[in-house]
Amino acid sequence: MKTADCILQQVIIRNGFWSEIRETVRREGIPYQWKALNDQVEGAEPSYCMRNFRVAAGKEPGKHGGLVFQDSDVAKWLEGVAYTLSWHPDAVLERTADSAIDDIVAAQQPDGYLNTYYTINGLDKRWTNLMDNHELYCAGHMIEAAVAYYKTTSKRKLLDAMLRYVDYIDSMFGGEEGKLKGYPGHPVIEMALMRLYELTQNERHLKMAQFFIKQRGQSPLYFEQESIDNNRESEWLQGPLKFAYYQADKPVYEQKDAVGHAVRAAYLFSGMVDVARVKNDSLLQKTCESMWRSIVERRMYITGAIGSSAHGEAFTFDYDLPNDTAYGETCASIAMVFLAGRMLKTRICGTYADVMERALYNSVLSGMQLDGKSFFYVNPLEVLPEACEKDERKKHVKAQRQPWFSCACCPPNFIRLIASLENYAFSADDQSLFIHTYLNSDVSCMVNGTGVKVRMETDYPWNGNVKLTLSLDEPASFELALHIPGWCKHYGIKVNGEAVRSDSKDGYHRMRKEWKHQDTVELTLSMPVTIVRANPRVYEDVGKVAVTRGPIVYCLEEADNGPDLHLIRLQGVTAEDFKVSYHPDLLGGVAALSSPAIRETCDGWDENTLYADDGEGRMENVTLQWIPYFAWANREAGEMRVWVRE
Amino acid sequence: MKTADCILQQVIIRNGFWSEIRETVRREGIPYQWKALNDQVEGAEPSYCMRNFRVAAGKEPGKHGGLVFQDSDVAKWLEGVAYTLSWHPDAVLERTADSAIDDIVAAQQPDGYLNTYYTINGLDKRWTNLMDNHELYCAGHMIEAAVAYYKTTSKRKLLDAMLRYVDYIDSMFGGEEGKLKGYPGHPVIEMALMRLYELTQNERHLKMAQFFIKQRGQSPLYFEQESIDNNRESEWLQGPLKFAYYQADKPVYEQKDAVGHAVRAAYLFSGMVDVARVKNDSLLQKTCESMWRSIVERRMYITGAIGSSAHGEAFTFDYDLPNDTAYGETCASIAMVFLAGRMLKTRICGTYADVMERALYNSVLSGMQLDGKSFFYVNPLEVLPEACEKDERKKHVKAQRQPWFSCACCPPNFIRLIASLENYAFSADDQSLFIHTYLNSDVSCMVNGTGVKVRMETDYPWNGNVKLTLSLDEPASFELALHIPGWCKHYGIKVNGEAVRSDSKDGYHRMRKEWKHQDTVELTLSMPVTIVRANPRVYEDVGKVAVTRGPIVYCLEEADNGPDLHLIRLQGVTAEDFKVSYHPDLLGGVAALSSPAIRETCDGWDENTLYADDGEGRMENVTLQWIPYFAWANREAGEMRVWVRE
Repeated sequence: MKTADCILQQVIIRNGFWSEIRETVRREGIPYQWKALNDQVEGAEPSYCMRNFRVAAGKEPGKHGGLVFQDSDVAKWLEGVAYTLSWHPDAVLERTADSAIDDIVAAQQPDGYLNTYYTINGLDKRWTNLMDNHELYCAGHMIEAAVAYYKTTSKRKLLDAMLRYVDYIDSMFGGEEGKLKGYPGHPVIEMALMRLYELTQNERHLKMAQFFIKQRGQSPLYFEQESIDNNRESEWLQGPLKFAYYQADKPVYEQKDAVGHAVRAAYLFSGMVDVARVKNDSLLQKTCESMWRSIVERRMYITGAIGSSAHGEAFTFDYDLPNDTAYGETCASIAMVFLAGRMLKTRICGTYADVMERALYNSVLSGMQLDGKSFFYVNPLEVLPEACEKDERKKHVKAQRQPWFSCACCPPNFIRLIASLENYAFSADDQSLFIHTYLNSDVSCMVNGTGVKVRMETDYPWNGNVKLTLSLDEPASFELALHIPGWCKHYGIKVNGEAVRSDSKDGYHRMRKEWKHQDTVELTLSMPVTIVRANPRVYEDVGKVAVTRGPIVYCLEEADNGPDLHLIRLQGVTAEDFKVSYHPDLLGGVAALSSPAIRETCDGWDENTLYADDGEGRMENVTLQWIPYFAWANREAGEMRVWVRE
Repeated sequence: MKTADCILQQVIIRNGFWSEIRETVRREGIPYQWKALNDQVEGAEPSYCMRNFRVAAGKEPGKHGGLVFQDSDVAKWLEGVAYTLSWHPDAVLERTADSAIDDIVAAQQPDGYLNTYYTINGLDKRWTNLMDNHELYCAGHMIEAAVAYYKTTSKRKLLDAMLRYVDYIDSMFGGEEGKLKGYPGHPVIEMALMRLYELTQNERHLKMAQFFIKQRGQSPLYFEQESIDNNRESEWLQGPLKFAYYQADKPVYEQKDAVGHAVRAAYLFSGMVDVARVKNDSLLQKTCESMWRSIVERRMYITGAIGSSAHGEAFTFDYDLPNDTAYGETCASIAMVFLAGRMLKTRICGTYADVMERALYNSVLSGMQLDGKSFFYVNPLEVLPEACEKDERKKHVKAQRQPWFSCACCPPNFIRLIASLENYAFSADDQSLFIHTYLNSDVSCMVNGTGVKVRMETDYPWNGNVKLTLSLDEPASFELALHIPGWCKHYGIKVNGEAVRSDSKDGYHRMRKEWKHQDTVELTLSMPVTIVRANPRVYEDVGKVAVTRGPIVYCLEEADNGPDLHLIRLQGVTAEDFKVSYHPDLLGGVAALSSPAIRETCDGWDENTLYADDGEGRMENVTLQWIPYFAWANREAGEMRVWVRE
């Protein structure tokens, strides 16, 4: 690892686009989800999450409730709480979190094991179903929570408990004789161990992460043997995916495409990037690059959503991106941010930040209602509410966000990402401060011993004007590197009011110089409305266009444009025909677009004639209103579509 | 019932389009399927069909094999055999059928009951699962076989057995106190009892059919009570369809739309039409009309296929007609022919014959490979073979016909329809002979005691020229009524070489006169290529067109046009740009079409760029070859599509 001479110290996100969302998460999301974890959301099925820990600790009688990975929802919530406490101290919330940690740690076994499902249902069965029962997954999330909570509060209770658990896992798994040669059916512990390693610098933590990655898919297949030994038939072994569902059909080095369950895949790849970077493992890094390209070049929606199929919440095949039956799990888009952020730490390249923004501003944000109290698990690009009710192919698609889920992985995942957004918006490396996306903020860093503060002022993503003002204890040499998004064809940049040459490289405008107190940088990203086409190989989008502006993908909703959105055509409409206007009262404040369009009418057609050779529809001129995709379904249920006919 | 003064006596179908298919059915299909019923098809799972009868009769040891309705496959085969024997006597085949009947009747119980599943698994359980276990369905098919076999061979063995079974069913079911108030989960016995009634004129047979129809969906719901009594949870009661899956959520008189399982629906409606006609029940007839309209005006594919969804093999909602995930079961299209044929017996109306032709020449015929030895269960209108393998939404869609199915309802259903085609091509009523579709044939009928023979000569469906030559013992007054299909905008008609006025009414050109020996009628149906649009409410077809000529729907196949059929556009192409040519060596002899088109190329697009604002595809001019939809998938597996972009 390079020595980081530029060290990020603190980021304060100030009033603006993201602070509003983060405040919703903090004020509404965190208390609401705590209620859900404690079975206090009216009308929602109990989650049993916190109760499971008390039952496992013997504090309460009862059975295990919910899914095998119910513990992980608590862990993700706690991790999110840790991040919010770092930017908004709150003694009451911290006491709540402490009490949750008390309940969690009370359920830990003397040998370090900590999992309510097996503790309640029989410890003799633990580690017998790595493939489907998520023990290492729950451990991974709890490790991440422990690290985050320790970093914010300096409280060691959960961290120490997890270090004991990790020691125990280390004693059970590994290449050494007598140890289990298994790995998690659902990755995440790889990333978590790397997070732990970053804190502890304990080589055993790194080695464990490496083991789980390198052992995966080795012959003989651990999952296959485990299934035989326990006479078990996993659902996924019946269909065409088989072990590829788990990204475990072959060693990761031999995998060519992103396959199987999309969240598992992106979590695994994220852990792989961490290990590759720290170990300088160029072969593993190459594998990560090819997985990245498989996703973003051939298997990703324009919104940054991944996972085309509800079956297995999975990737399917190249260019197979149906809009109306899309899965696009919120967690999978969150995982794309994790992955992109890690790719950026390995190599600065605008594509990584482009994809990160694509996911963040679109399919991640769409995961939460503007009020913070309901959620999308699935993020389609086209919705016909009647079809969601009556068409089995679309039963996973909801036209409105739900208050909670029996499998509630997405809501707390959303919290932990949004509450730690600064870790993705910025990074520092060697003598450089990188800004990957733009938001009102104060970034404090230490450059070669000099304190540097960068104040950023912007209305991004609603326009492309960004102003940076530097505060320095004394002049300092370092590089300021600004992401020039792929969608931006022209940008201008001024330093202290003087235009400098726009010569971005690999998606970043890099300025290495001696910076002084009160230096300013003004970046102007040209952010026109853009009409986007999909590669013709994407057969579901052929003859259609999408409309974007900056990082925001737009959509049409029935609330603005009436029903039968399939009858709308943009034939002959150009980007110049679009008008942009900011509406402070619409959907929490968004830049909406209006455009002309034509609309086929059904006038010429009897309702009772299905097919005719003389029934060419009449066209009428209409004006469309476009809203950001992430804000859809915040009004009454209705149709929505991103890809519109040309 | 009106007295039929014109009585159809015999139809001989001569060399031509249909005789070739019927010969394939007779020579290949019947022996092949007999092998399948006897577990002798190599590479196919055993069907256990005939063995079940021997096991039930105690002739062989063993368990019941296959599905609960396995008996019905034998019945349908036998019915088909009966029809072929009527136009092609075959002593060897008849002996085979006799031996099958021996095995069937040997399994009959002393009380008349005849069902191998319950006989083998426990007679104490019979009639406890009318909803899902198909006892009355199997009885219905066996009744149809018995009537058909008796009518061809005058052999009473199976008929007498089924009369005993019907007596027993009559003793168990009915409105009288102490009888079961149930009805079949899968209709067909209604049609069968009406077929039996037509033969026996036994009012009890009619009354039973009426009972099953009128009892259906009455409160309290029989199926609901049966499920509670037996503590059973049917799959269909979990989803949104519930009892509507069985068309049993409310009494048939109160049903407004065609819902649920498409085959069940069309069989039920067919039985209802029979009862309504015989009983002159105008309310029931009105219900039938509204069910018919629900299907053909809002829920039917252009190929005549019905059932949009694989889930429940069911109707979904108005205008929901996805092409790539279509179900369109072959049996459902066959059922549409049954239904249309019955509607025509109630009222002569061209729409009924139009829909009958639409189904017959397209989605029925597509059910069988040209060699008669493999079959489609599902008939999609758009296929991408890779998606059928890798996309769970399309796993029911096959790119190639299959040798057999564990649920093998379609292949023998195909046989029994095609082998009795004359019953749908012609009908007689009062003093009229109706010709609903055109085929080389000799029709013999008796008009007021005078023998009349009509020889029909035509190349239909490849062109619209039809010549009728009459042979009469003596001049006779009767009406000759010729179907003028809905697709035909202009036709000419000559009697004895003299043009007569084209004044069709309700889709028929009716000529009531005194006909003499050697009178000729020459009909010329104008049969241009037609570019058809779907109602704009059909959102899956918007911006697309289909190509038809006469009753034939055409499609594009990869074998002729290369892959990526989604890139083909017919923009600006008119019907006049199409060329028609008959290819005797192509697909058994078909009229193929060629047309210009443009094709988007992927040249301007990097394989690794999913989205771009400057990536407008280049267009190239291509020439397309179109083949009849029914003949698709008779070459190598590849893409196919009916609806092509404009």
